[in-house]
Amino acid sequence: MKMLGARISKLKEGLVEISAKNRSAFNQQDGFVHAGVLATLTDSAAGYATLSLLPPGSNVLAVEFKLNFVRPAVGDILRGRGRVRRLGKMISVCEIEAETRRNGKWVSCAWGSETVYCIRKT
Amino acid sequence: MKMLGARISKLKEGLVEISAKNRSAFNQQDGFVHAGVLATLTDSAAGYATLSLLPPGSNVLAVEFKLNFVRPAVGDILRGRGRVRRLGKMISVCEIEAETRRNGKWVSCAWGSETVYCIRKT
Amino acid sequence: MKMLGARISKLKEGLVEISAKNRSAFNQQDGFVHAGVLATLTDSAAGYATLSLLPPGSNVLAVEFKLNFVRPAVGDILRGRGRVRRLGKMISVCEIEAETRRNGKWVSCAWGSETVYCIRKT
Amino acid sequence: MKMLGARISKLKEGLVEISAKNRSAFNQQDGFVHAGVLATLTDSAAGYATLSLLPPGSNVLAVEFKLNFVRPAVGDILRGRGRVRRLGKMISVCEIEAETRRNGKWVSCAWGSETVYCIRKT
Repeated sequence: MKMLGARISKLKEGLVEISAKNRSAFNQQDGFVHAGVLATLTDSAAGYATLSLLPPGSNVLAVEFKLNFVRPAVGDILRGRGRVRRLGKMISVCEIEAETRRNGKWVSCAWGSETVYCIRKT
Repeated sequence: MKMLGARISKLKEGLVEISAKNRSAFNQQDGFVHAGVLATLTDSAAGYATLSLLPPGSNVLAVEFKLNFVRPAVGDILRGRGRVRRLGKMISVCEIEAETRRNGKWVSCAWGSETVYCIRKT
Repeated sequence: MKMLGARISKLKEGLVEISAKNRSAFNQQDGFVHAGVLATLTDSAAGYATLSLLPPGSNVLAVEFKLNFVRPAVGDILRGRGRVRRLGKMISVCEIEAETRRNGKWVSCAWGSETVYCIRKT
Repeated sequence: MKMLGARISKLKEGLVEISAKNRSAFNQQDGFVHAGVLATLTDSAAGYATLSLLPPGSNVLAVEFKLNFVRPAVGDILRGRGRVRRLGKMISVCEIEAETRRNGKWVSCAWGSETVYCIRKT
């Protein structure tokens, strides 16, 4: 996240957003933000969203994630969102989404799911 | 890819590997390479693997990808591999895998699939 | 769907639900509805949800689907829902969800995404 | 599985195949085997493949599965395969594949991954 200049821009119980300014270094040859950059933001957001519901001192590991790329990612700011849809004892299932801001309007570019393994502090 | 210092390290028809030296900037707070970095390498590899089977001048777009994280990603070199399993007229389905080199031995850290949309040069 | 005794129970533009009475034949050894039955309902729902937005005479093909199983599937009625989140020219991305009715209350058991290929009638 | 007339046709450590005769009841309006039938076979296969590596008396639960549909599913026999790629203490990651036999030749129709939660008998 430091590498991307990203920071947590929203933090509620079970919902986290992480934002970064877009940079030319994030872009592919075609001028769109690389899918991996979007995945970095959404994966971090899903992890923090899960952590926000666990006891302090707990830890999380990504089991898997899956993203559909639904629109070209262009814009001046990027943000990834993770929202916990189902928290079990050991497994958290999150909805993830990446958006870009274009001319002041947020547009969804990638959407999917992430499974997170919870190591609860006991 | 430039941002990661990555380069194509293997290129065969339908199979591409992309490698990068590991750096502390790629790592999360726990010392493992961030899932998004692995996704960046494998996504690029899947795109190039598909392109390698299309007519020159064709283009590709990621429809979706999915990665399971199967081992902690530590090591001095990272590589992502994309292998086309099924090439249709418009859709390519690739197996993707990310490995890290530890003490000279390659270890699989992430494995999954990617669906690529093909814009064939006609 | 005939085999499952399933029928369309909701049909709006971009949103379809398909329901079936639960039967012991749908259940695994542990008494939960088999994941494949839930996938059958949600896959059909995603296909019809996409068709509902296409010109009459169009056709659809599943490219891929992905389901997280978030609660044990028990109850007297099952339903699968498909909702189009993004319709492109050729690709539709749907949110899919399976629910079961327990003591009169609907509970989400599986949730995920499906990518549908659109063959538009021209 | 009983409903599909399916049976285990191969059982090795970490690799299970489940087969069923194709029936018209499995088919969609277009004459292809429904994606949900293929998912039923592969999901069962992944569960048994994982069980084959666990202590007797252990149990498994599907966390999630993902399938790409790579060819139309037609033929006289169907089989689903589950192969464990990585077995952790609690999580098993399997490769899954569904094939149909056409004119005596096996053809891959669906391919993907499944994450299985292991409840080890202790």
